[in-house]
Amino acid sequence: MFSVTITSYIAPAAAGSGIPEVRAYLNGVDAPDIFSTSTLLVKIVGCIAAVSSSLHVGKAGPMVHVGACIAALFDNERLHKYHLTGKWLKYLNNDRDRRDLVTCGASAGVAAAFRSPLGGVLFALESLSSWWRSSLLWRAFFTTAVVAIVLRELIDVCIRGKCGLFGKGGLIMFDVTSTTIVYHLVDLPLVILLGVIGGILGSLYNFLMEKVLKIYKDINEKGIGYRLVLAGAISLITSCLLFALPWFASCQPCPDSTKEGCQRIGRTGNFKNFQCPSNYYNDLASLFFSTNDDSIRNLYSSGSHELFDQYSIIISFLVSYFLGIVSYGVVAPAGLFVPIILTGAIYGRCVGMLMGSRSSLDHGLYAVLGSASFLGGTMRMTVSVCVIILELTNNLLLLPLVMLVLLISKTVADSFSGNIYDLILQLKGIPYLKGHTEPYMRQLTVSGVAMGPLRIFNGVEKVSNIVHVLETTGHHGFPVIDEPPFSSTPVLFGLVLRSHLIVLLKKRDFLPTCRLTSAGITKAYSSDDFAKKSSGKGDRIEDIELSEEEMEMFIDLHPFTNTSPFTVVETMSLAKALILFREVGLRHLLVVPKTSSRSPVVGILTRHDFMPEHIFGLHPLLMKGRWKKLKFEGSPFVRYFRGLLLGSANNSVSSEF
Amino acid sequence: MFSVTITSYIAPAAAGSGIPEVRAYLNGVDAPDIFSTSTLLVKIVGCIAAVSSSLHVGKAGPMVHVGACIAALFDNERLHKYHLTGKWLKYLNNDRDRRDLVTCGASAGVAAAFRSPLGGVLFALESLSSWWRSSLLWRAFFTTAVVAIVLRELIDVCIRGKCGLFGKGGLIMFDVTSTTIVYHLVDLPLVILLGVIGGILGSLYNFLMEKVLKIYKDINEKGIGYRLVLAGAISLITSCLLFALPWFASCQPCPDSTKEGCQRIGRTGNFKNFQCPSNYYNDLASLFFSTNDDSIRNLYSSGSHELFDQYSIIISFLVSYFLGIVSYGVVAPAGLFVPIILTGAIYGRCVGMLMGSRSSLDHGLYAVLGSASFLGGTMRMTVSVCVIILELTNNLLLLPLVMLVLLISKTVADSFSGNIYDLILQLKGIPYLKGHTEPYMRQLTVSGVAMGPLRIFNGVEKVSNIVHVLETTGHHGFPVIDEPPFSSTPVLFGLVLRSHLIVLLKKRDFLPTCRLTSAGITKAYSSDDFAKKSSGKGDRIEDIELSEEEMEMFIDLHPFTNTSPFTVVETMSLAKALILFREVGLRHLLVVPKTSSRSPVVGILTRHDFMPEHIFGLHPLLMKGRWKKLKFEGSPFVRYFRGLLLGSANNSVSSEF
Repeated sequence: MFSVTITSYIAPAAAGSGIPEVRAYLNGVDAPDIFSTSTLLVKIVGCIAAVSSSLHVGKAGPMVHVGACIAALFDNERLHKYHLTGKWLKYLNNDRDRRDLVTCGASAGVAAAFRSPLGGVLFALESLSSWWRSSLLWRAFFTTAVVAIVLRELIDVCIRGKCGLFGKGGLIMFDVTSTTIVYHLVDLPLVILLGVIGGILGSLYNFLMEKVLKIYKDINEKGIGYRLVLAGAISLITSCLLFALPWFASCQPCPDSTKEGCQRIGRTGNFKNFQCPSNYYNDLASLFFSTNDDSIRNLYSSGSHELFDQYSIIISFLVSYFLGIVSYGVVAPAGLFVPIILTGAIYGRCVGMLMGSRSSLDHGLYAVLGSASFLGGTMRMTVSVCVIILELTNNLLLLPLVMLVLLISKTVADSFSGNIYDLILQLKGIPYLKGHTEPYMRQLTVSGVAMGPLRIFNGVEKVSNIVHVLETTGHHGFPVIDEPPFSSTPVLFGLVLRSHLIVLLKKRDFLPTCRLTSAGITKAYSSDDFAKKSSGKGDRIEDIELSEEEMEMFIDLHPFTNTSPFTVVETMSLAKALILFREVGLRHLLVVPKTSSRSPVVGILTRHDFMPEHIFGLHPLLMKGRWKKLKFEGSPFVRYFRGLLLGSANNSVSSEF
Repeated sequence: MFSVTITSYIAPAAAGSGIPEVRAYLNGVDAPDIFSTSTLLVKIVGCIAAVSSSLHVGKAGPMVHVGACIAALFDNERLHKYHLTGKWLKYLNNDRDRRDLVTCGASAGVAAAFRSPLGGVLFALESLSSWWRSSLLWRAFFTTAVVAIVLRELIDVCIRGKCGLFGKGGLIMFDVTSTTIVYHLVDLPLVILLGVIGGILGSLYNFLMEKVLKIYKDINEKGIGYRLVLAGAISLITSCLLFALPWFASCQPCPDSTKEGCQRIGRTGNFKNFQCPSNYYNDLASLFFSTNDDSIRNLYSSGSHELFDQYSIIISFLVSYFLGIVSYGVVAPAGLFVPIILTGAIYGRCVGMLMGSRSSLDHGLYAVLGSASFLGGTMRMTVSVCVIILELTNNLLLLPLVMLVLLISKTVADSFSGNIYDLILQLKGIPYLKGHTEPYMRQLTVSGVAMGPLRIFNGVEKVSNIVHVLETTGHHGFPVIDEPPFSSTPVLFGLVLRSHLIVLLKKRDFLPTCRLTSAGITKAYSSDDFAKKSSGKGDRIEDIELSEEEMEMFIDLHPFTNTSPFTVVETMSLAKALILFREVGLRHLLVVPKTSSRSPVVGILTRHDFMPEHIFGLHPLLMKGRWKKLKFEGSPFVRYFRGLLLGSANNSVSSEF
C-alpha cells in the first residue's frame, strides 16, 4: 500500500512493469513523464516495497525501466542544468540517439536483472526495439559487457565481505550443472507435449490477464482510495493463501544435503518447517516463503524428485497462476517476468510428477523446460528467453530442448492471442506502430485515410495566422507552401515543426512586411534552440504572449523548414505508405496530389492515421468485408480458425517487393 | 589443385568463402550463379579437397554458403521442374521470402559449422543480413534449433557406432570447463592489452590480405594455367613450412595424461612425435599436423602451460599468420574463420608465455581471448563471435572477458581499416549498399546524381519502341507516363519492370491500335508468369523474335504497371534518399520534379547511383573538398587521424530525424 501511495501521488507513470512503455517509446511514442527523475525514484523504492511485501510480482520489468530511465537522464537539458556540457553531448540532441541510449539502458536492466549480458542484448533486440542497426547491437553489447564486469566484481567483493544476500545470488543464478543432463530422442514427444500445454496455458494467462486489467482499470480510475482498497484486497488474498494453504500440506523429513537445516519462516534457507516439528519441513511453505529466486533455484535443482509432494506442487501451481494474474494490475511498480518463470517452473515439475517413472528426464530439467514453455506462451519471445535461461542455468547442453519447447509454445500461443505486452499497450491506448501491414491496408489509398482539415503555412506567414493555427490544432508538423510572388506556381517548400515555430515566436524576430528575410538570420539561433526537449518539457503556445503589433508582422519560414520531407503520391496504397513510414521512422508523411492542378499538398499522415481504430472509423465497411480485422472478433478460438483461412491473405502482402 | 580445377571449370562462383556473396545477395545484389546446383556441389567437394590438403583455409565460410545454396534450392522454378507444387510454394515467388530463406540457410550453416545454434542466428543478424524483422529472427532460430537437434542425435548415434571422426568432435567442440577459470580485476589491464594488440594485428591482416588479393586477382584472371600454378605454389610453400620447421623444434616428453600416447604423423591424436624418439613429442609438429580443430582444442585446453615451447609458439604464430594471408586467394572454396581462430589462439598463447609468471591467468584462457581479439580485429563481429566462442568453450564464466576483448579489438581495428568482408566485396566490385550515409551525401540532391538518359514509356506504347529501348539499355525498370488523350496533362502512372515487359512481349497479346485494353486482359496471365526467376534464368530480349506487323502494334501497359512506386522530389538530399532506398529495400526510386511545369519524372535512382565511385565520378570536387571520402587515401594511419578529426562530421548525419 505504501508502494501504491507513492506511485499514485508522485509518479503514476511508474506503475506496472515499464516494459510496454519503453517499447512504445522506442517505437516513437513519447508518453509523458515515463523517464522523469521522480518516476525513476518511485520505480526503485516502489518495486522494493512491492516485491518485499510478498506480492506475486517481479523485479525484472522495473529494472528494465530503471535502466531506461537512467539512460534518459543523459538528457541535454538536464545536463545543462548541472553545467555538464561538452561537444559529444550534442549527439544526444536528437530522437534517434536518445532512443539508442534508452535501448542500451534497457538492455543493461535486463542484463543486471538476470546476470545475463547476452540475454539483455537479445531482449532489447527482440522485444523492445522497433528499429535496429548494427551499430546499436554493438553499443548495447558494450553496455551489457560493462554490467557483467561490474556485477562480477561486486560479487567478488561481496563473497569476501558482507553484502547481505547479494553475493549469494540475490539476483538469479542457478547452477544446475552439478549433474550432466541426459536426454534422448524418445523424450521428444513429451517435450513437445510440454510445449503445447505451456502455450495453451500461456495464452489463457494473457486472456485472463487482459480481462482482469480491464476491470482494475475501471477501479483504479475512480481515485486513490479505490486503488488502496484494491491493493489491500490483493495483499490480503495473497497473505491468506500463503499462510492458509501450507497447513494442509504434509510434513517431510529434512534432506541431509542441506547445510542450514530446516528453518522457520523469516530466516534464509530453502526449507521451511512452518508448523512441522524440527527436522521436518513443509514443502508448500518452502515454496511460498522463500524468495522467488530461491524457489526457482529449488525447482530447477536436479536430483530432487522427492523434495516436493505431488499435491503441493499442483496447489502451488494454481496459486501462482492465479496470483500472477490478479497481482499485476496494482498501481505499483511490478514486473511480470519472475512470476511467469516461477509459475512455469512449477508447471514443469507438475508435468514431471504426473509422468512419474514413465519418463527418464530429471525433474529439474522439467522445471527449466516448463519455465521456457510458459515464457514462450505469454511473452512470445524466443531467442532472448532461450539465452536468458541458458545463462541462468549455465548449461549449454539444454539448448536444443529449450529451443524446441519455446518454439512450440510460441507457435501454439500465437494462434490464440497476442503477446502480453501488446495487450497492455492496447489497454493503455498507446498508438504502437506494428512492423507488418494488415491485408485491408492494400485496399486503401493514402488519400482515403489522410482526412481532417489540413493546415498549411505560406513561405512567409503572418504571425497571427501561425498563433491561431497553433492554438486551434494539436498538429506537430505543418506543410509550407511557396505561392506567388515567391514562386511562379504554388510549390511545396517543406515541412515545419510546431516546436520550431514556437521557438521562432518566442524569439520575436519578426519581419514588418511580407518579404524574404536576410541570409544571416540563422546566425541568431544556435542548434541548441531547436534541440528536441525531453518529453513534455517543451514550451507551449499558450505561454507566449504577443502584442497586437507583433501579431500583424510576418515570419519567413524558409530557413527553418525541413526542405526534404518524405512524400507519397495520393494514390499510393496504405500498406506501402506504412512500410515507408515505419521503416524510415517518420512522424509526418506528406501526401502530394497525382496531378498538378490542385494544391501541392493534399494531406499529412501521422502515426494515428495508421491505427486500425482510425481506419475502421473512416471505413466501417472494411470491418464487415472479407478483410475483416480478426482482432475485433470475440472468441480466440473463432479467431484461430479464421486465422488459418486467412493465412494466405496475410502473407501475400510480403510479396510487394 | 583438384579443387582449383573443378572450381575454375564447373563453378567459378564457388571460389572463396562465399560469405561476402551471401552478404551481397541479402543486400539485394544477385550475383550470377552463386546459388546454382553446380556451385553447391563444387563448394562441398572443393572445400573437402582444399581443407584436407592441409591448406591453411577453413570450412566454416563454405558451410555458410552451402547452407544458403540449399535454402535457395527451394526455388519455385526448380520445384516446378520436379513437379513439386503447392499453395505454400507461392510464398517463395518474391525476393523477400527468398532472402529470408537464404538467411535461414546461412544461419544453419554457421550453426552446423560451430555446433553453435545461437551463434548462427546472431552471425546472420550481425554480419549477413541487411534487413531484419522479428519474424526472421524467429525463423532463423527455428532452423538452427533443428540443426542443433539433428547434430545432437547424430552424435548420439556416432558415439555408439563408427562414424569416423564425426562423433568425436570432428566439428569443433571444446570442453574447457574441466577447471574453473579464475580471474580478477588485476588481470584487466593485461586483457585490454591483448585486445589492443589483437586489433592492430587484425587490421594489419586485413590490410595485407587486401594487397595479396589484388595481386592474386591479376594472376587468376590470366587463365586456368596461372590459377593452377598459383595454387601449386601456395601448396608447396605450405608443405615446405610445415615439414621443415618442426625439425628445428626440440623434443619434449609425452604428458602422462594423454591416453593415445604420442603418435606418428597421419594418425589421429594430439601429440605427434615427428622426428623425436617414441614417448617424446615435437610441439610444433603437433600444432601443424593435427587438424585445425584438434590444434584449437589443444591450445584452448587449460592447465597446459608446459605443453608448448615458447619459440615453437612464436614460429607457429608467424607461419599461421602468413599462410592465412596467402592461402585465401586461391580459386577454390576456402573459408577464413578457422584460420583466424587458430592464429588468434596461438597469438593468445604467445602473450601468455611472454607474460610468464607475472600473470595468474591460465594459458588456455589466453588462447580463447586471443582468438576473440583476432576475430574482433579482422571480422569486426562482436555479439556473434562472443556467442560462438562461448558455445564452443561451453563456459559462460568467460563471458565478461571475451566481451571486453572483442570490444577493444574491434574499436582499435575499426580506426584503421574496414572489415574483411567489406574489403573482399569491394575487390569484387559488388555494389554493396551500406547502412549508413556518408557526410558528403548531405551536400548533394538526388537530381545531382540521377544522370543519364531517362527512358520513359507511355501508358499505351508501341511494341517497336519497347523492343528498341530494351535492346539498347540495360535498365531494369522504366517509368510509365500517361499523356493525352489518356489524361489531361502528363502524369506519372507508375513503374514497369523489364522482366514484366519481356513476359508481355513473349505472350504477343498486342493491340492493333493505340487504345486502352479490356479489363479482362489480366485473366490471360497467372501470377506465376510474373514470378521472379531465379538469378540469371529469366528470358532475354534477344530471345524474342517479332514480325514487322507485330512491331507496329501496341501494348497497354496500365494493368502491368506498379502504380505505387516510391518517389522523391528532385530537391531531396541524397542522404535522405539513401535512407529511404536502403530501409525500404528498393531497387528503383523515381525522382519527380518540384514544379509541375516539366515532365512528371526527371530521373530514376538505382543502387549504382548511391555508390561512392559513381558519385565521385560526377562530382570530382567532392573528393578534394572538406568532405573528402577517407577511403580514397593511402595509409591507414593517415586515415586514422583524419577519422578522429572528421568524427563529428560523420556522426552529425544521424541527427537528421
